[in-house]
Amino acid sequence: MEHPRPRRASVSIRTVAEAAGVSTATVSRVLSQADHPVTPETRERVLEAATRLKYRPSHVARSLVTSRTRTVGAIVHDVADPYFGEILRGLEDTCHVGGYQLVACSSDRDPGRELGYVEHLLSQRVDSIVLVGGGIEDDAYQDKLAALLDDYREHGGVVVLLAPNAYDAPSILSDNRAGSSAMTEYLIELGHRRIGFVGGPPNVRTSAVREDGYRHVMQHAGLFDPMLIESGRFTMEGGAKATADLLEHHPDISAIFAVNDIMALGALKYLASVGVKVPDQVSVAGFDDIQIAEFVGPGLTTVAVGTFALGQEGGRLVLRLLAGQSGRTTTLPAELVIRGSTASPAANDPMAGG
Amino acid sequence: MEHPRPRRASVSIRTVAEAAGVSTATVSRVLSQADHPVTPETRERVLEAATRLKYRPSHVARSLVTSRTRTVGAIVHDVADPYFGEILRGLEDTCHVGGYQLVACSSDRDPGRELGYVEHLLSQRVDSIVLVGGGIEDDAYQDKLAALLDDYREHGGVVVLLAPNAYDAPSILSDNRAGSSAMTEYLIELGHRRIGFVGGPPNVRTSAVREDGYRHVMQHAGLFDPMLIESGRFTMEGGAKATADLLEHHPDISAIFAVNDIMALGALKYLASVGVKVPDQVSVAGFDDIQIAEFVGPGLTTVAVGTFALGQEGGRLVLRLLAGQSGRTTTLPAELVIRGSTASPAANDPMAGG
Repeated sequence: MEHPRPRRASVSIRTVAEAAGVSTATVSRVLSQADHPVTPETRERVLEAATRLKYRPSHVARSLVTSRTRTVGAIVHDVADPYFGEILRGLEDTCHVGGYQLVACSSDRDPGRELGYVEHLLSQRVDSIVLVGGGIEDDAYQDKLAALLDDYREHGGVVVLLAPNAYDAPSILSDNRAGSSAMTEYLIELGHRRIGFVGGPPNVRTSAVREDGYRHVMQHAGLFDPMLIESGRFTMEGGAKATADLLEHHPDISAIFAVNDIMALGALKYLASVGVKVPDQVSVAGFDDIQIAEFVGPGLTTVAVGTFALGQEGGRLVLRLLAGQSGRTTTLPAELVIRGSTASPAANDPMAGG
Repeated sequence: MEHPRPRRASVSIRTVAEAAGVSTATVSRVLSQADHPVTPETRERVLEAATRLKYRPSHVARSLVTSRTRTVGAIVHDVADPYFGEILRGLEDTCHVGGYQLVACSSDRDPGRELGYVEHLLSQRVDSIVLVGGGIEDDAYQDKLAALLDDYREHGGVVVLLAPNAYDAPSILSDNRAGSSAMTEYLIELGHRRIGFVGGPPNVRTSAVREDGYRHVMQHAGLFDPMLIESGRFTMEGGAKATADLLEHHPDISAIFAVNDIMALGALKYLASVGVKVPDQVSVAGFDDIQIAEFVGPGLTTVAVGTFALGQEGGRLVLRLLAGQSGRTTTLPAELVIRGSTASPAANDPMAGG
């Protein structure tokens, strides 16, 4: 069936779907000759509507129509952080079983680098894009990203998110806020009053959500002090630096809550370097429960998000959506894992309080 | 300049290079209009020879000639192992500075999956392929890999290796054998006689080279016993299982040398689970010095290969070769890092010996 040449194509896949009385997924399926067949009537109806409306797939869509690349592209923020490596591994295993290859890019949380990789993956005609890192708060970036992904999805591309993002798409999320709240409550129950918070880059949404949980609980307990919040940029060096700054200016801090594990490792490294004992003098808690957290001396107390499972669930969502099935956003529980790096403050009541 | 249409093209870039009296790199540079210009005479000479010989670039080469994708593709064995994540990060940073994007694939050391990713990257017209994991000993795999990469390189593609491989290409290598020998010698000097060796998959060349170093030193000391060698498949679970098996059958073992750090973590996990104290009852040593090794309680003794530096050096080699410059194989030193997980055996002389 030949599509007539459009003057100025502006017919979206949604318009075709509405005209044919089917879902956009069904339109994609018909046009892409996907594995899951539709009934001959539906097929006819879609093709009739597409022809009548002079629907013509764009550059990206044409490739999706003619042949799938059977490739999923993932973008992480830092491939050296085991959090992302473990998610990618779960994602790759699941995609592989589903007959898809996974290619991964690492953006260093740089909006330009991230957009460059999105454009690259689109130009490589991946069947699905998975944004593994949290959204970056930058208007120009978000506008550009939305334009790229809207167009991609309109033409049958599948977008899945594995972290909170300003862009709206089916997601597998960790319960970042609940995990952060639970850890803060646990530290308060242990008797800590001055709890230093080491966040990620202020412009990354995952960090903001985790900070929200801490802030809310601290405020509720009458313990909130904005001076106890530092950014550790989600890196080991950043975690060490933030911990040093916090303790220098607030020597009454008895616990450090770093909202990813590698920043918590940075905190441990700094504390060891200045001879501060963990947890006797200062407790340290992390977030993510990367595979190695249990091996850290003295065992890192952290929030388990289930990194491999997050990747696997993400892969299943991608495969469902690629098969034209529905898929909705799911939030996985984030659970406290108590190990040796946290304890009640040793000394008399710290000087500060609610 | 128009290339005449060939009947059955079989003229290689090497033939053109010989006819023009220049290197194949120069031919690639002229045909790809690379950044580093050659003299007008050389350019003329190459184009004359290419035309006269009816040289015509293949599918892959055509794309390299018409436009670079400015993409480097890397294949690792296990993206969840920080060893590979850290190398990828070093590689990405260097490629990014050089104006290239990096896409990465993870093969789980499966020959079919690895070849699938090589084919995928070639089909995506990457300018360079970097094999980060060691070669897989499998004849059919090696033949297919060589055929793919020979053709790719003949048409201007750049192949770089970051681990030993049967395929011959410019490489940045760690001194795996020297590192393994040094660790074995160190354990013997501490007084260990029965040293269990936990290797990677027997078909991965990196593992074989590391085993060679151990074997050689143990034989030289009259301590070699092939029963003390187990495969831990380079995974944490495999390392735990291999350690359990070794100690069950050889309770006189006083030290475990696992040739990557995550297997050493598996060994520590198993030993903790059965109440064996490290290093008092059994010493544990790893290999790689991944970022977290220093945080492990009681600090993991290991062999530092400089993961980030390995990736950065690999990136520099890729950029040099893409610029048409020469690049040769370099071996980076592998250095012992002594931490708390190793010590002299506590008890009287172990029962076995040379």
